[in-house]
Amino acid sequence: MPRVSPDHLQARRRQILDGARTCFARHGYEGATVRRLEEATGLSRGAIFHHFKDKESLFLALAEDDAARMADVVAEQGLVQVMRDLLSDRTPGGGSESETEWLGTRLEVSRRLRTDSEFRARWAQRSEQLTAATKARLQWQREGGNLRDDVDVDVLTAYLELVLEGLVSHLAMGLPADDLGPVLDVVEESVRRHRGR
Amino acid sequence: MPRVSPDHLQARRRQILDGARTCFARHGYEGATVRRLEEATGLSRGAIFHHFKDKESLFLALAEDDAARMADVVAEQGLVQVMRDLLSDRTPGGGSESETEWLGTRLEVSRRLRTDSEFRARWAQRSEQLTAATKARLQWQREGGNLRDDVDVDVLTAYLELVLEGLVSHLAMGLPADDLGPVLDVVEESVRRHRGR
Repeated sequence: MPRVSPDHLQARRRQILDGARTCFARHGYEGATVRRLEEATGLSRGAIFHHFKDKESLFLALAEDDAARMADVVAEQGLVQVMRDLLSDRTPGGGSESETEWLGTRLEVSRRLRTDSEFRARWAQRSEQLTAATKARLQWQREGGNLRDDVDVDVLTAYLELVLEGLVSHLAMGLPADDLGPVLDVVEESVRRHRGR
Repeated sequence: MPRVSPDHLQARRRQILDGARTCFARHGYEGATVRRLEEATGLSRGAIFHHFKDKESLFLALAEDDAARMADVVAEQGLVQVMRDLLSDRTPGGGSESETEWLGTRLEVSRRLRTDSEFRARWAQRSEQLTAATKARLQWQREGGNLRDDVDVDVLTAYLELVLEGLVSHLAMGLPADDLGPVLDVVEESVRRHRGR
């Protein structure tokens, strides 16, 4: 029996995730059939489901990927920067189209999230890491005196996350977004400390 | 041939819209089949499509209804009040469940909005009235000296609409919303004029 190296396993996992992301983006959650997942990843269903229990787990692993990447940006530059990156990703040349479509697929599971409490719990677990990173960053800014101090950090975290949800929805619906840069300036400024406050 | 009074036509139209809204909320856009629309409205397909050209037109008429109702609230109390109403609608006893489900159906059409430019144009036309009402209200507040004057009214309008989109998405996904009251306070305050600004 051949031994498989951890590096190889990791690369295989990555191959599956990348293909699956494109597949979910193109066909939506329901439309991403096992056959299409095979085509998109270039692997057999046996290989795919050796790494991920089922389609739901695969989808949630992608959501976890998103949260982890966003949490990294948050730690360095804050959640508003995550939003600015989402905005600029969609400009021509930014390799935007499939990213927008992937955001749309995230919206399409809303019914499932609402009605399937186990799925919702697994989803929420994935986004906790983004919330934690946002809260930590805001706390750090408060200690540095750069954050407004008249509103609880939990409230400011929820505020920024709500705007992010709005941006995801806006982009996923293909609505015009060229004018949103100054809107994000308002968002950023509204959590900052002002002179005289 | 019997003459039909305008009042009767209007009542029939209302009956169709109310039933269709429940049907879309319960089954989603795709799941709202003609048979189910018949059951939900208590009318034949002939009667339904006498009033509305097709399912898409019926759906867009409901979106237009939403926009008109919201625009009325905006004119009197502003867009943040629309958001507060959405929040309180979902509290126990608020007749919330089907409203939340309807919001979810609005999200589910995101793929269609993104890929079908004609559908997107018809949808956008429906929301223009909400944008216009929001802008008019903000303009009026600015003239009264209650609005911050360092940011363009168009930007503030887009800002409030983005937060509304976030709230709709959040509620439609069934995420916890009990802590969002103070978040809306931050939103409201961030468009107001401050002493010293």
